[in-house]
Amino acid sequence: MEKREERNVAETTARRRQLADAAIATLAREGMRGLTHRAVDRTAGLPEGTCSYYFRTRQALLRATVERLVEVDTADLAERPAALGRSSDPAEVAEAVAEVVRHWATSEGERTKARYELMLEAGRRPELRAALDKAREHYHRLAETTLAAAGAADPAAQAQVLIACMDGLMFRHLTGADPLSGPPERLGDALTDLLRGFAGRRG
Amino acid sequence: MEKREERNVAETTARRRQLADAAIATLAREGMRGLTHRAVDRTAGLPEGTCSYYFRTRQALLRATVERLVEVDTADLAERPAALGRSSDPAEVAEAVAEVVRHWATSEGERTKARYELMLEAGRRPELRAALDKAREHYHRLAETTLAAAGAADPAAQAQVLIACMDGLMFRHLTGADPLSGPPERLGDALTDLLRGFAGRRG
Repeated sequence: MEKREERNVAETTARRRQLADAAIATLAREGMRGLTHRAVDRTAGLPEGTCSYYFRTRQALLRATVERLVEVDTADLAERPAALGRSSDPAEVAEAVAEVVRHWATSEGERTKARYELMLEAGRRPELRAALDKAREHYHRLAETTLAAAGAADPAAQAQVLIACMDGLMFRHLTGADPLSGPPERLGDALTDLLRGFAGRRG
Repeated sequence: MEKREERNVAETTARRRQLADAAIATLAREGMRGLTHRAVDRTAGLPEGTCSYYFRTRQALLRATVERLVEVDTADLAERPAALGRSSDPAEVAEAVAEVVRHWATSEGERTKARYELMLEAGRRPELRAALDKAREHYHRLAETTLAAAGAADPAAQAQVLIACMDGLMFRHLTGADPLSGPPERLGDALTDLLRGFAGRRG
């Protein structure tokens, strides 16, 4: 009897995760306007009504989607270049930053697009903020540690600017402005200059 | 007869502009999902059916909204600090950049939010890109001129990073991360460091 219950819980968790992943893909492709319970069923290849069964309301679906997104983002970032937070060489840190930007804007472009959709939605639905804020604090700490290791003069304030810069580069790439085109070292060089500037005030 | 025709053209132009402004306000408040012809009529305080009469399709409404947004943005930017493109002092340029970011993220926050909604939509509807691309080229030229005047080593590539940084700061402020909180000089100082870094490679 207990075994069966455990199996049911595991199945429910897996199904909810599958639906949240399908919601992320739907959001990336069709935007907030295209995100419906039926569209998520179609994306997941599940019978109509499945998404409504697991997430009764739009709010429940959105919240699960944000939570799943944050979970995947955080796991992905944990595997990113060791230089983040550990190197004191601006060029090495800049290369690591550029790599995260490129990875999230290209291979993980769908998830990143969904994140911007959800961030705009969170501006209208404060109940979505908690999960996003937790992720933001995590990114901020990582950026601050990275900048401090690279000799930054004011890591806390400069981390805000560095994260904004990364977000802006990804957003612009995903919406057609393409700041990542051109030889890759040009972005790396511009970011190195930025990091040298952040360290400059100290010396 | 001709006088009357002229008056009709002027009235049509004014009404279309009024509807596009209402669409911008609707987008900022309710997102892409809330943008319907009826919602625009309500925002504009016009009888139901007006928006459909002037813009038969959703695409026509979206295109007019993007064009109006670009028109207002460009006019607004033309009135911004004289330091943009004319000063060689990093601290002065940083202050001007911070002022644009603050202005667009607060007093003009509605329009800026609508712009990000439209940029994401343009990723899905290439027919919206033309107007946005024209605006982007304009911003890029302005950023490049500004950086060149401030002694930047590679104004073209660095302009991409500067604009991304401004976009990211506004986006994050509008979606609740608030990088503009805290004493205003901290953002100014971080941007000054960035500009000094951009100039540093030269010297």
